[in-house]
Amino acid sequence: MTESQSGGLSQPAVTLSTAQKTVQVALGARSYDILIGTGLIDGAGKAIAALGDGMRVAVITDETVARLHLDPLMAGLADAGIAAVSLVLPAGEKTKSFEALMQVVDHVLAARLERGDAVVALGGGVIGDLSGFAAGIVRRGMRFIQVPTSLLAQVDSSVGGKTGINTSHGKNLVGVFHQPDLVIADTKVLDTLSDREFRAGYAEVAKYGLIDRPDFFAWLEANWRGIFSGGPERAEAIAVSCRAKAEVVAADEREAGRRALLNLGHTFGHALEAATQYDGQRLVHGEGVAIGMVLAHEFSSHMNLASRDDAARVQRHLAEVGLPTRLGDIAGALPPTDVLLDHIAQDKKVRRGALTFILTHGIGQAFIADDVPGAEVHRFLEERRSP
Amino acid sequence: MTESQSGGLSQPAVTLSTAQKTVQVALGARSYDILIGTGLIDGAGKAIAALGDGMRVAVITDETVARLHLDPLMAGLADAGIAAVSLVLPAGEKTKSFEALMQVVDHVLAARLERGDAVVALGGGVIGDLSGFAAGIVRRGMRFIQVPTSLLAQVDSSVGGKTGINTSHGKNLVGVFHQPDLVIADTKVLDTLSDREFRAGYAEVAKYGLIDRPDFFAWLEANWRGIFSGGPERAEAIAVSCRAKAEVVAADEREAGRRALLNLGHTFGHALEAATQYDGQRLVHGEGVAIGMVLAHEFSSHMNLASRDDAARVQRHLAEVGLPTRLGDIAGALPPTDVLLDHIAQDKKVRRGALTFILTHGIGQAFIADDVPGAEVHRFLEERRSP
Repeated sequence: MTESQSGGLSQPAVTLSTAQKTVQVALGARSYDILIGTGLIDGAGKAIAALGDGMRVAVITDETVARLHLDPLMAGLADAGIAAVSLVLPAGEKTKSFEALMQVVDHVLAARLERGDAVVALGGGVIGDLSGFAAGIVRRGMRFIQVPTSLLAQVDSSVGGKTGINTSHGKNLVGVFHQPDLVIADTKVLDTLSDREFRAGYAEVAKYGLIDRPDFFAWLEANWRGIFSGGPERAEAIAVSCRAKAEVVAADEREAGRRALLNLGHTFGHALEAATQYDGQRLVHGEGVAIGMVLAHEFSSHMNLASRDDAARVQRHLAEVGLPTRLGDIAGALPPTDVLLDHIAQDKKVRRGALTFILTHGIGQAFIADDVPGAEVHRFLEERRSP
Repeated sequence: MTESQSGGLSQPAVTLSTAQKTVQVALGARSYDILIGTGLIDGAGKAIAALGDGMRVAVITDETVARLHLDPLMAGLADAGIAAVSLVLPAGEKTKSFEALMQVVDHVLAARLERGDAVVALGGGVIGDLSGFAAGIVRRGMRFIQVPTSLLAQVDSSVGGKTGINTSHGKNLVGVFHQPDLVIADTKVLDTLSDREFRAGYAEVAKYGLIDRPDFFAWLEANWRGIFSGGPERAEAIAVSCRAKAEVVAADEREAGRRALLNLGHTFGHALEAATQYDGQRLVHGEGVAIGMVLAHEFSSHMNLASRDDAARVQRHLAEVGLPTRLGDIAGALPPTDVLLDHIAQDKKVRRGALTFILTHGIGQAFIADDVPGAEVHRFLEERRSP
């Protein structure tokens, strides 16, 4: 496919093909491949076996995913001669807890897996973040394989090595950087997602366009229906997203600088998730990011950094695919703005008390803004809340 | 001081001086200093302040150490303008648990410390391993400072970045590699240790001689009394030990190869600790290592790899300083040999089911032995248990 890395090129951002795609995350000795294609779970055992002889694995998944995809994965592992155990956890964000982490760690140790063996995450972001954290701390680091089954996980959380759990102090405040050895993204399994879940993942796809790929964003505006309906656009959009993330991760594995751009929409989004007690009925992560991205563009316009038109265009596209884009789109009451700001300040992207946001000069022109005045954010949010 | 890195040199292994010593652990961007000297805790605040402006810290310690050393440390931090909170945990190996980890993490998050702030471990190996683990996972890695107050921690656990906790499956099976930013080893605080605890730490000092510094081992045989009584030999022995460990860590941070030599005596030792349920009344870590080192030398002799005389010399010296050196020196009954082997096989140094031991060709000539036959180890242990 055609690369679409620099913003203003006139050639098409994306060309279509139906073959399996491979995106490499270049991290020296820790480089790994992301395999993207239809029906890959059936052959996952073979792909995993290729990583090393005699490997054993512990598959971690949740109840929802287990019903749909665990049997074919386990069958493929058995066919490939890989000894495997599995652990099925409750579905949902509450599973990203210390308690579940202890359960996974205990399961892996009880199976006597060694450093060269692997933890396999079969599921969405919750299972991936939790299992990756466990793989990162058992024996101070075991092999780790991601088999993401949600769009969000395929384009975002399964790539880049961030792992973690939530605590009462906030989301993802505890974790490690632990890169996977392989990511297997089966685009066919996304057909089993609810519309709402698919849309939530799409917010992260759009994000890559908004950060630094304006052509990709324009392509998404024209082609999003094919992505949602499972046309060839789906694998292409996932590959472009993975490549976008892989580039940023390769340049800045530990989030010392540029990687922070991936947090576009996330500072507001995380605060909204915290403010709704991570209640997935009210708001899921990608929805928080969608609202957060609109807020980031509108706040940038409020600060005279970007045009109102770009903010409106972002809002329009995300609303068109069915994502929430306004604070008022969240069911139920939100806490006072002071409490929202408090959640923002606890967000781990804080540096020495100053508020750091990802702001933008327009679509595809995001940048890291340090020392954003809290009072301005407060005023801006108050405005957004009045009817 | 004179380096004593290669085995058979004829110059003295160690020369004495009373000044503060600095040993650097060379790890590129993550390099750090170990400060060694008398009364350093009083000035620790100043040394920590030198790491960066506006840093805040959470001091983690235990009840025993808090009574003796927390006040001067906190006073020094306050004098240096460093905002600090502290958490005092129960003393003892049981504190290396998931529950205590959660407590430390919660304490650090509740204080709203950021990535550039630091967790300070004031205590022995338990507090250091636990606090370092917490520092490694809060916000996916915060600054970490070790103020080790036991001999064991000063010469071993505070250097090298290994952190972790125990689980029902074994010791240190869960943790991360997380290097400290500074280690402050106050040799004066060791006067507050019990004889038993000091001796246990001494086992790790002797280990550096046994691995690859035969001159240092000979110097210890002649000078150990000065180390125990607090003479200038003490700081010298600690500096040689830290330098020995720093070299190995710099060459092999993640224990892919040579670093495994530091486990001399530890495979047997950990199995004995597990077999005695980590009951510090019966066996503390350094005592397990002492017995383990004697067993490693005797097993090497049993396998015709080393002379009986060297094994006897090791046993004689460790017994002379008052360390246990025989299985029979452990109070109470040990489980059957099969169970001991089981503990050995769960030890994390296992590779693909084969038993890996650190064996030796003689004093100062340790090496990594893969594929040690379990049946030989079983026979050897059975012999050692018969009266």
